[in-house]
Amino acid sequence: MCGAEIKASAARLVEALAERGLMIATAESCTGGAVAAAVTSIAGCSAVMLGGVVAYHNDVKVALLGVDEGVLLSHGAVSEPVVAQMANGVALSTGAACAVATSGIAGPGGGTPDKPVGTVWVAVKVRGNLVTRLLQLPDRGREENIRATVLAVLEMACGMVLSK
Amino acid sequence: MCGAEIKASAARLVEALAERGLMIATAESCTGGAVAAAVTSIAGCSAVMLGGVVAYHNDVKVALLGVDEGVLLSHGAVSEPVVAQMANGVALSTGAACAVATSGIAGPGGGTPDKPVGTVWVAVKVRGNLVTRLLQLPDRGREENIRATVLAVLEMACGMVLSK
Repeated sequence: MCGAEIKASAARLVEALAERGLMIATAESCTGGAVAAAVTSIAGCSAVMLGGVVAYHNDVKVALLGVDEGVLLSHGAVSEPVVAQMANGVALSTGAACAVATSGIAGPGGGTPDKPVGTVWVAVKVRGNLVTRLLQLPDRGREENIRATVLAVLEMACGMVLSK
Repeated sequence: MCGAEIKASAARLVEALAERGLMIATAESCTGGAVAAAVTSIAGCSAVMLGGVVAYHNDVKVALLGVDEGVLLSHGAVSEPVVAQMANGVALSTGAACAVATSGIAGPGGGTPDKPVGTVWVAVKVRGNLVTRLLQLPDRGREENIRATVLAVLEMACGMVLSK
């Protein structure tokens, strides 16, 4: 289901989580479940994988991740506070020590002058430490934008887990 | 991120949902987000895609999908009542008119004489109509077992949506 590069990255993350004894949960908007699917593609992931929420529609971000409606309205779904709340929300509801979140504009529609296609916020939380990052991807089409986001968040999570 | 066959099937499902004016949500165990990722890979899916829950660990099935702990204990996670409760749970929490659920043994571990690797329960709910199906996949490895499950549930959902 995943390409070789994503599978290798997911395998490194699963190994890092297992070494540190941490469980992971995901909160995904633009990647739509592809981060969770990458982790789940690894045999033996059950030692570290709790699950997560695919919050593609804003109503699901509010209902299942506890994202604040006012923040959604004032900052937009593709924003630092929203992706931080998504990571915090899934960490809280699942009890995961490691949580990752994605929210971006994968295209082809949805871009604006301020937030063109390829604008993506990601967040990784490992224990109490939450880090957000803005990706400004060159728009290489929806599939590649999603793929690049999945890879970025897997690598970021792996680095943060290993630094614990 | 997905193969061509899954992408084509997901595109047909998105089109069918859009024609009928129905929104979809997913509840995935063994497929780990791959059904949601397939739907999300289709440009324009935002018209029909709400999101879903990846409930890989049983604790997440209980906490985020409202699956009954007693049923999990008595029937096991890979069972008809659990996959039905998963579909009902995500339909309830998201308000989706169409809900799909998967729970199976993707392997390589986890198989038993009663439930060998490749045993998968899937459920599709369209409005009030819930249908479950047991897939007994020939075990062609974790990746192919997941892929075959995603394809089966996408096709099943498309058929049920079009028959509405």
